[in-house]
Amino acid sequence: MESDRVAKAVYVGVIGGRRCSAEIAELAFQVGSGIAEQGWILVCGGMGGVMEQACRGARSRNGVTLGILPGGSRSSANPYLSCSVVTGLGEARNVLVVKSSQAIIAVDGSYGTLSEIALANAAGIPVVGLRSWRLDADQNNGQRLFTREVDSPNEAIRAVQSLIIESF
Amino acid sequence: MESDRVAKAVYVGVIGGRRCSAEIAELAFQVGSGIAEQGWILVCGGMGGVMEQACRGARSRNGVTLGILPGGSRSSANPYLSCSVVTGLGEARNVLVVKSSQAIIAVDGSYGTLSEIALANAAGIPVVGLRSWRLDADQNNGQRLFTREVDSPNEAIRAVQSLIIESF
Amino acid sequence: MESDRVAKAVYVGVIGGRRCSAEIAELAFQVGSGIAEQGWILVCGGMGGVMEQACRGARSRNGVTLGILPGGSRSSANPYLSCSVVTGLGEARNVLVVKSSQAIIAVDGSYGTLSEIALANAAGIPVVGLRSWRLDADQNNGQRLFTREVDSPNEAIRAVQSLIIESF
Amino acid sequence: MESDRVAKAVYVGVIGGRRCSAEIAELAFQVGSGIAEQGWILVCGGMGGVMEQACRGARSRNGVTLGILPGGSRSSANPYLSCSVVTGLGEARNVLVVKSSQAIIAVDGSYGTLSEIALANAAGIPVVGLRSWRLDADQNNGQRLFTREVDSPNEAIRAVQSLIIESF
Repeated sequence: MESDRVAKAVYVGVIGGRRCSAEIAELAFQVGSGIAEQGWILVCGGMGGVMEQACRGARSRNGVTLGILPGGSRSSANPYLSCSVVTGLGEARNVLVVKSSQAIIAVDGSYGTLSEIALANAAGIPVVGLRSWRLDADQNNGQRLFTREVDSPNEAIRAVQSLIIESF
Repeated sequence: MESDRVAKAVYVGVIGGRRCSAEIAELAFQVGSGIAEQGWILVCGGMGGVMEQACRGARSRNGVTLGILPGGSRSSANPYLSCSVVTGLGEARNVLVVKSSQAIIAVDGSYGTLSEIALANAAGIPVVGLRSWRLDADQNNGQRLFTREVDSPNEAIRAVQSLIIESF
Repeated sequence: MESDRVAKAVYVGVIGGRRCSAEIAELAFQVGSGIAEQGWILVCGGMGGVMEQACRGARSRNGVTLGILPGGSRSSANPYLSCSVVTGLGEARNVLVVKSSQAIIAVDGSYGTLSEIALANAAGIPVVGLRSWRLDADQNNGQRLFTREVDSPNEAIRAVQSLIIESF
Repeated sequence: MESDRVAKAVYVGVIGGRRCSAEIAELAFQVGSGIAEQGWILVCGGMGGVMEQACRGARSRNGVTLGILPGGSRSSANPYLSCSVVTGLGEARNVLVVKSSQAIIAVDGSYGTLSEIALANAAGIPVVGLRSWRLDADQNNGQRLFTREVDSPNEAIRAVQSLIIESF
């Protein structure tokens, strides 16, 4: 990594389940590829499923991937991490994935992903939803889960681009 | 606290926002009172709003309240805590509130509360919802936020009673 | 716990190993008894050894004991805890034991205890040493491990009394 | 980072104070350079002083540096981090620095550093000491702070080499 990339490093999180369908895996791969093409560092929880596929996509484009692992060792990390952090914090590491990201793309996902979406909203970090949790804002005092909801990996990347520009 | 209570201690969490309307405050007070009447220890995040009102209710019935604080000191804790833990972990302390509870009652609440609801589901801890987040399970692969949804503090206490019995 | 005790609650930590000799166990028991006699809440890591004996001592004087557990459940907690917190943080919970204490008594102990002594010093929390780690300040830029070193449980309690008064 | 480096990535921690003398700064710089020359990833707490100088040294040799930050943003990170994690955990992040390292080099340092040395010993992670804390094992039940004590950055690197080989 040259100095330039470091100086201007943009961190984008990808969150989603440890297991996923082939269709979701393909979407995650493309999200990861897109993040790498932008020169952003991909942040994730470092495990399988959506996290692994996104990392695989990023690495296929020579991207940098950072995994923040829940366990006490690197033994269950996915093999596409440039860098990993061993936390031993269990699910409390979700907070670190969120705080380390300037914007987040949620792909599918179960309760762990929902906790990260909620934590991001609590922290004011924008979240883009792709085939993820659905909530009717009208029934929740106008509270929304996603800053933007999109239908494709390409749209997710474009949404993050505009959200990051807005935040400067 | 006599030995007996300790030996059989049941920990029930109350989660909800740091600010709330007068109507929600009254519900939280009654939930806290009900928890104390059952002899359960009330676990919460130790701050204001729903947490404070629930603790006030519990203390009005001579209950024991345990606050798990996000900050680095006790200065912003509510005044109705029997015991408090200073974590300095910020929102990562939400995980501790969840894990320290055998069952949880969510009253109203915003994104922080939603993160706790999600974390509880991820950990298999039952959550009872009272005027809290609403989600259509049909649109979320059948995933629900609450083990039970109730309309009153009394119902919330009864729901926790049956959920705790089930878990033995 | 009556309101009065809560309002003026003083939290004193006891740190030490999960295993200890019979002699150290007796010292820990007396430290715990002394803490309870002062009406202070005893904070500890909730496990066996020094922690358990101190809690046993405190409970024998009707004291209140708060255990901050490293694991993901209460199954390995010692049986003398009035209240316990399940953190799932592993050794990172040492930080919470330290931050939740206004003063700390270290009894014997191994590396985990040393980490807590160091963290307390970093946070400016006074630590009293009783048969614990020994360090020559002259060889360490004048840095000391303990605010006071004492030879008996009684002295440890008196040292905490004066340290807590000083801190007001 | 090519796949090869990732697959065989070795993580070596550098711990030390946020402030240091010019002499210690030079030692830290050389330690960082040596780590990069070996192709190891340098793990640290991401702040100034020893951490910053070690990272500067590593980057001067095109090394990869990973900073695990205590605060809630990247604003106080040193400018020589290839990757950084925002934890918001305060000093509890020390545990993550330790667990993410296969071996650690301690350079000088105050109480925060001592907590990391202790945590590493508790976790069985080897620590090499260079001008750091001094303890007489004879007075501490034979417990030592360092797996090896060395007098120069070169020796520190060689010690880590042999310790990492031993651990396979």
